[in-house]
Amino acid sequence: MKDDRAWMQLAIREARKGLGRTSPNPCVGAVVVKNNKLIATGFHEKAGTPHAEVHALRGAGVQARGATIYVTLEPCNHTGRTPPCTQAILASGIKRVVVGMLDPNPLVAGGGCKTLGAQGVEVVHGVLAEECRGLNRPFMKHVTTGLPWVLMKAGMSLDGRLALASGQCAWITNEQSRRQVHRVRDRVDAILIGSETALCDDPALTTRLPGRRGRDPLRVILDSALRLPVSAKMLQQESSAPTWIFCGPEADVKRAEALINAGAVIKQVRLDEAGQLDLGAVLCELGRAQLTSVLVEGGSRVHTAFLRANLVDEVNIFVAPIFLGNDGVPLVDTLGLQQVADAPRFSTTRVRRFGNDVLIEGLMEK
Amino acid sequence: MKDDRAWMQLAIREARKGLGRTSPNPCVGAVVVKNNKLIATGFHEKAGTPHAEVHALRGAGVQARGATIYVTLEPCNHTGRTPPCTQAILASGIKRVVVGMLDPNPLVAGGGCKTLGAQGVEVVHGVLAEECRGLNRPFMKHVTTGLPWVLMKAGMSLDGRLALASGQCAWITNEQSRRQVHRVRDRVDAILIGSETALCDDPALTTRLPGRRGRDPLRVILDSALRLPVSAKMLQQESSAPTWIFCGPEADVKRAEALINAGAVIKQVRLDEAGQLDLGAVLCELGRAQLTSVLVEGGSRVHTAFLRANLVDEVNIFVAPIFLGNDGVPLVDTLGLQQVADAPRFSTTRVRRFGNDVLIEGLMEK
Repeated sequence: MKDDRAWMQLAIREARKGLGRTSPNPCVGAVVVKNNKLIATGFHEKAGTPHAEVHALRGAGVQARGATIYVTLEPCNHTGRTPPCTQAILASGIKRVVVGMLDPNPLVAGGGCKTLGAQGVEVVHGVLAEECRGLNRPFMKHVTTGLPWVLMKAGMSLDGRLALASGQCAWITNEQSRRQVHRVRDRVDAILIGSETALCDDPALTTRLPGRRGRDPLRVILDSALRLPVSAKMLQQESSAPTWIFCGPEADVKRAEALINAGAVIKQVRLDEAGQLDLGAVLCELGRAQLTSVLVEGGSRVHTAFLRANLVDEVNIFVAPIFLGNDGVPLVDTLGLQQVADAPRFSTTRVRRFGNDVLIEGLMEK
Repeated sequence: MKDDRAWMQLAIREARKGLGRTSPNPCVGAVVVKNNKLIATGFHEKAGTPHAEVHALRGAGVQARGATIYVTLEPCNHTGRTPPCTQAILASGIKRVVVGMLDPNPLVAGGGCKTLGAQGVEVVHGVLAEECRGLNRPFMKHVTTGLPWVLMKAGMSLDGRLALASGQCAWITNEQSRRQVHRVRDRVDAILIGSETALCDDPALTTRLPGRRGRDPLRVILDSALRLPVSAKMLQQESSAPTWIFCGPEADVKRAEALINAGAVIKQVRLDEAGQLDLGAVLCELGRAQLTSVLVEGGSRVHTAFLRANLVDEVNIFVAPIFLGNDGVPLVDTLGLQQVADAPRFSTTRVRRFGNDVLIEGLMEK
């Protein structure tokens, strides 16, 4: 006899199937259960296509009558690109609805549950709510603030160095770690680097997974003076995703034209007091384009700027089993802290080994 | 029906009971088994007291006749402070001896097994040998080189900083991590820090475990000019362990006398080309005193010197979930590396979480 939490766990597993594919929508899973027997499952596959509940109810057909539906996120109660799920649930004859988390949008939160309850359906919510929220942190941030979720990723030596001072572009982390990076890229809407890294490494910034399963995120380069050459690999390759280059108000128009001709999209934003591109403005622009998550891959200057501006939401740091010394390039440059209590801090959510490398994942405290 | 490996696992568990108490001897465990039934167990408790085999055989009494004994380390074949274990085994009527690892001393390795075999006892060795070696790395290094095992320990921010530049002595790691440090101190023969750390933190360098179970390791201070004041906490406290201060050949005699009067032991060693205390000479001195392991607790200069001299055997690095920035005190100072391939490297042996802190343990590659 499975209890509500066990069935919700199954709905969460369904939801995960949509990870990285539903943006700007959340990933949602649903299962229909009757007499403690699984009748049907469903998950949201892609924005503009049916919601998880609809898939599950279609699968259940007439068996939905009198059944329970478990859904990781409160059913929607409004007509968007698809009709409201509350209506589909009522029409199906479902008797009981178990919800993971309420809608994060404060304007509509609880509305779906209320509508269902008013029609005599038994409604329970908050079952594995924390796990359900964990599925959709980028969506929740975007829907409530308009800004994308910022995931800081780096590979460094145990003593916190990205590379040797010589600028030698040798890999520090191992192949297993690099494969994991591509799995993360496959789940984010955008990937962002600074011009230094773009010029030094000339990276492709694509998702490369075995069997070409990956989906390229939109590429974002912070390049205040538009130094990126049109010959850069990311402008010359085949990719389903565009390359956006953010520059300052003074950037050269001719250079902008050349880059546009090479396929790039140029976005001008203001500079901050330090004379660097205003990161808040960059994130606003990404959020407006319905990008709910951005993977910040460095280098040192970019990581430091995001940390200083308190704009990092999550960290993924790969620690390689070597020491490079204080003459190497630091993960984070000067922060000017006066006391340890002021240091940017995260809570560790997961620690994983990839061979001799260690991946530390955490959520930044705000 | 347990097999040889399962019984050896039990012998290893016995051996662990002596961890940190048997130096300069190894920790060894033994179990006597007959008709697949456990008859008796034993472990080596302390140098100068009976070996594990003797304890187990005494426990078994006449039941040892025809039984199998599992022992993590090859039984000794010579008379030291106690008679040879091979004789005790032969006298007991044991029929079969299963050995984990052979004696690491190349001059006597295999001798115990050979003696037993020549008397008609069935001998097997190499069962869980790697696990058995893992119990006694300090002993193995000391018995083969005369030098103690060097364990580098530090608590740092994720970006590799020990503290803020301000020198503010705030804890970076959490209480759970600090408790683990005391468990490690409880298992080593000596603990070593530099004079900077001694002056800045004025640490006790004792083992503080719940219920006063701990045993203080010998304290070692690297203090070339004897700057440590006689009022230092480690000279004023009650502790079962002495404090050794290593200084250079030019250190002031008056200061040395004052420190000796305060209870310290002064050891003079030569300086290296960089004008710092010669770490090889320091380790030789510790090894001669039968100290098989030394925990190096920093600070930055000491860690850097040990790494540069390639003298670190093992690392225990606690990573706290904060960023302190490049203006903080680095775990490792300049290493002057030309390529990543030259970087000091370890293989990760274990990764553990202590709340939000992460402990990375590894064995240095030589």
